[in-house]
Amino acid sequence: MGTILCAGLGPGDPDLMSVRADRAIRAAGHVAYFRKKGRPGQARRIVEGMLAPGVTEYAMEYPVTTELPFDSPEYIACLAHFYDDWANRLATLAQTKDVLVLCEGDPFFYGSFMHLYTRLQGRAEVQVIPGIPGMVGCWSATGTPITWGDDVLVVLMGTLPEAELLRHMQSADALVIMKTGRNLPRVRSALAAAGRLDQAWLVERGTMPGERVVPLSEVDGTDCPYFAIVLVHGQGRRPEVIE
Amino acid sequence: MGTILCAGLGPGDPDLMSVRADRAIRAAGHVAYFRKKGRPGQARRIVEGMLAPGVTEYAMEYPVTTELPFDSPEYIACLAHFYDDWANRLATLAQTKDVLVLCEGDPFFYGSFMHLYTRLQGRAEVQVIPGIPGMVGCWSATGTPITWGDDVLVVLMGTLPEAELLRHMQSADALVIMKTGRNLPRVRSALAAAGRLDQAWLVERGTMPGERVVPLSEVDGTDCPYFAIVLVHGQGRRPEVIE
Ligand SMILES: C[S@@+](CC[C@H](N)C(=O)[O-])C[C@H]1O[C@@H](n2cnc3c(N)ncnc32)[C@H](O)[C@@H]1O
Ligand SMILES: C[S@@+](CC[C@H](N)C(=O)[O-])C[C@H]1O[C@@H](n2cnc3c(N)ncnc32)[C@H](O)[C@@H]1O
Repeated sequence: MGTILCAGLGPGDPDLMSVRADRAIRAAGHVAYFRKKGRPGQARRIVEGMLAPGVTEYAMEYPVTTELPFDSPEYIACLAHFYDDWANRLATLAQTKDVLVLCEGDPFFYGSFMHLYTRLQGRAEVQVIPGIPGMVGCWSATGTPITWGDDVLVVLMGTLPEAELLRHMQSADALVIMKTGRNLPRVRSALAAAGRLDQAWLVERGTMPGERVVPLSEVDGTDCPYFAIVLVHGQGRRPEVIE
Repeated sequence: MGTILCAGLGPGDPDLMSVRADRAIRAAGHVAYFRKKGRPGQARRIVEGMLAPGVTEYAMEYPVTTELPFDSPEYIACLAHFYDDWANRLATLAQTKDVLVLCEGDPFFYGSFMHLYTRLQGRAEVQVIPGIPGMVGCWSATGTPITWGDDVLVVLMGTLPEAELLRHMQSADALVIMKTGRNLPRVRSALAAAGRLDQAWLVERGTMPGERVVPLSEVDGTDCPYFAIVLVHGQGRRPEVIE
């Protein structure tokens, strides 16, 4: 019996993956990763040059979604079928070999691998190597600490309704908003309503080639890549402030 | 002119630090780290066996605090003086050498190094290597994903007043409560009031020797180490649930 091992790759710079993930990737004989159809895939790009010669690759290509809205029952059923299918294939592979699954950031933090992980329970041995979440690479890229003292940090998805975004933005000290992409206009409008737009930063492709760090208020237009995070740094308690 | 480089060490297992941190630690000639007086210090323990022969070590020992409450103006002034003093010493060292500062988890996430970082701006070149935050090691140790779909994650400090803990616990899907230690009774009482005690886990020393993962409701007494985190996993949107 083999093992299915999922390695968290960290935010994007290969130097920021863990020593254990680095070792597992270089030693792997069978490597699987998610990607959009027709794209090289971010996870695969991060390990470029690290895979052993002769490795077998399994590109798990998301079903194409141009006609179906992301939250439609049809698309959700289609995704469930996709995860079922790959869970079956990986379980079969794991009867005779070790398989390494690549995952951006940390696998247990909003990761697609979790949908395979739950489906594989009891059918194969599954292990996970944690990774630096994308948001950590993003706040590092701003060169400013994200949280101090008693600060409350709230992590939000840009896919939430605007009223919910606003409610949470008002109650937090520090903010992380992921899945910004095409949701950027709604995120920006909620931040403005919460009075926090002026402190917000947009980090695109944190620690990856093409990294960009800009005050959100200076961003024109609504274009935003998939790998983008909006941050508001906490101010917290600091000895030098109180003194 | 030298550089002051702060390396995030990750949650505790040396195998979980980044490739870049691992390399910097093995190459360092001058290594500084915080610790409590009379203790070996967690950061120093994590790098045991990795430091080069002949390295110079600087133990930055927190001022002793037995008589002063943590939030008293006297203790805060005392801490500010301590950070001022070490910022001066590191700035002086960095005029002629590279200095590596060790920091548990990620340095910009509630890290003590941030107090040196702000003080050193404009006086030395300072760089930070991100790390896997302790909470990521802790949710990995539970073997269960922390957030799914649109889940809202809130990170709280156990030092907050109970009413504030409760308010945030009610509005979040997934919860991380750090600085649990002697605040455990208040954290537990707020979780009970929020109706979430039964889903809460206590992770002590996540990924370190002596790791312990237990349902919080089964924990007797109020004893809890400094390296302890309380978690409530999000349930989120999942294709298999909606289908
Ligand atoms: C499905 S979530 C996966 C999160 C991943 N498991 C992690 O730990 O970061 C994808 C979202 O993560 C964020 N993200 C991850 N890495 C990023 C990076 N390096 N730069 C900017 N955003 C990133 C983006 O907001 C993106 O929409
Ligand atoms: C001052 S904060 C430092 C956080 C650190 N910079 C990080 O990124 O995790 C200290 C708190 O982190 C939490 N912590 C950090 N690592 C931990 C671990 N391995 N296991 C349990 N708790 C941990 C504990 O709640 C502790 O009180």
